[in-house]
Amino acid sequence: MKERHIIEQLLMPLASSPWALGLRDDAAYLPSLPHGIVITTDMLQEDIHFLRTGTPAQIAHKALAVNLSDLAAMGAQPHSYQLALALTDAQDEAWLRAFCAALETQHQRYTIALTGGDIIRASPRLTLSITAMGCTDAPLLRSNARVGDGIYVTGTLGDAALGLHHARGDVHLPEPYASYVVERYWYPSPRLSMGIALRHYATSAMDISDGLMVDMRKLCDASSVGARLYYDLLPLSAAGHYAQRHHAQLWQHCYSAGDDYELLFTMPNLYEADVRALCPDVAITHIGEITCDASVMLLDANGAAINPHYAGYEH
Amino acid sequence: MKERHIIEQLLMPLASSPWALGLRDDAAYLPSLPHGIVITTDMLQEDIHFLRTGTPAQIAHKALAVNLSDLAAMGAQPHSYQLALALTDAQDEAWLRAFCAALETQHQRYTIALTGGDIIRASPRLTLSITAMGCTDAPLLRSNARVGDGIYVTGTLGDAALGLHHARGDVHLPEPYASYVVERYWYPSPRLSMGIALRHYATSAMDISDGLMVDMRKLCDASSVGARLYYDLLPLSAAGHYAQRHHAQLWQHCYSAGDDYELLFTMPNLYEADVRALCPDVAITHIGEITCDASVMLLDANGAAINPHYAGYEH
Repeated sequence: MKERHIIEQLLMPLASSPWALGLRDDAAYLPSLPHGIVITTDMLQEDIHFLRTGTPAQIAHKALAVNLSDLAAMGAQPHSYQLALALTDAQDEAWLRAFCAALETQHQRYTIALTGGDIIRASPRLTLSITAMGCTDAPLLRSNARVGDGIYVTGTLGDAALGLHHARGDVHLPEPYASYVVERYWYPSPRLSMGIALRHYATSAMDISDGLMVDMRKLCDASSVGARLYYDLLPLSAAGHYAQRHHAQLWQHCYSAGDDYELLFTMPNLYEADVRALCPDVAITHIGEITCDASVMLLDANGAAINPHYAGYEH
Repeated sequence: MKERHIIEQLLMPLASSPWALGLRDDAAYLPSLPHGIVITTDMLQEDIHFLRTGTPAQIAHKALAVNLSDLAAMGAQPHSYQLALALTDAQDEAWLRAFCAALETQHQRYTIALTGGDIIRASPRLTLSITAMGCTDAPLLRSNARVGDGIYVTGTLGDAALGLHHARGDVHLPEPYASYVVERYWYPSPRLSMGIALRHYATSAMDISDGLMVDMRKLCDASSVGARLYYDLLPLSAAGHYAQRHHAQLWQHCYSAGDDYELLFTMPNLYEADVRALCPDVAITHIGEITCDASVMLLDANGAAINPHYAGYEH
């Protein structure tokens, strides 16, 4: 398909909001908004950020979801996004149609609109760069964690990394664990409702993309505090428990694995019941406390520090 | 350099506005703005959008300027931008430092701030995706050209394409033409002050990126009108005149060449003097009229239609 046909046949139907100006102008136009705007950019490239064996729907979902996860971490309501695509010769019309159909599904699910973007052809590797915009008047930041706050995470840790290992054939997990972790790899769940709920409770928040320990360190640095985390409290899925029992070499995944896209946040523990009541469909787990020293420690059941072999994904 | 060091040492100093949150959070945050927001994304890849022989400063300038040109076409004041970089192994620390220094120069010149972005390493080709944001309450659109309006362009046409041909060795231009056109190729001048001035005069506007004739067609389609352009009125630089005389095979460049990044706009002719007075430092040339039929015609001195061999750059 020519670029013009991709835009007219596949992207214009996705850009039905008035802000997109029908994708016919030099830019999109958002009239003055009553709220502040949260803006985030994530660029994904095949072989680096996702397996090139992914279906168009998997790739579309992952690329948009990782951006939405950043909006969730800031407590923002999704608004719109710009999509830049560097396509290889492998993205034919059928691929593009499936990709756009998957985007449309997410538009409905997350109430977000495509406003514009750009397309490159004949790129040696499929590369997607999304800039997502959201609205909030009270952004959640990483920088306000206070000594004594509880440390919490949503969902379970390490599943997506297990999914990647399984899909690559590094480990073999039996069903139903295999399907579950591969699903978690391709279909992160941006914790948007939790992020919005946390605006009035959390002192700090971020999403876990590079691994719990690495990201905890970033949050502590931004807040000039330390953290004590308890290994036995880290939430694992049934698949995670299975991998912990049967694949000892992966034992550290739950706290150093990338691609979780769960929220890591801090708040006074007295708010825990309120937050659970506000978002009853999202599990949250209390995994530790903010401390006044600068260290980020992970403690085992005996109170001994666990020294991670692999401290997370360094880009 | 590790990604963390690139961010801390090179990008954080560029992101000094409060909106960037020090590049320490999951996203940038723009508090509620009194004006509407114009948003545009341009993705550039080496070998496709620019020569890989470009210096870091040339590449930095071109990538930001083509985005700013879209803001100019919408009559917007630049505000901020997100930068996604897919770097190859060729972008070492010296390259990155020169690239960031060139961005900083443009920050000052155009009063624009870096708010965030993303970095990929080990990409097979250098790829840059910029999403630029600007402010205006009265965006210039492509869709309001009216029958009888004059058609105007800023600057001169075809220089950047000549620069590309010269740099690739397809043609040899003597000095000072060679330096001039290569400069025009790498350093487009976003016509920001003209775009802002035109908000109260122009009925439609866009920037010329794919060639005058192709882009005139887009503007006419958006406005449901036609256009009559006069070849003898098209503005050429001294280098363009030289190429027209000595490189007959390039004669069509002035109206079908990409990369001009000049503004194409329409307005009632009676505003011409006012617009010239508002932007005395930018040349504008009256090149034709908007018509009521759907055709876009280029006429020679005898009134005969010129049939372009090459109708512009189709992506």
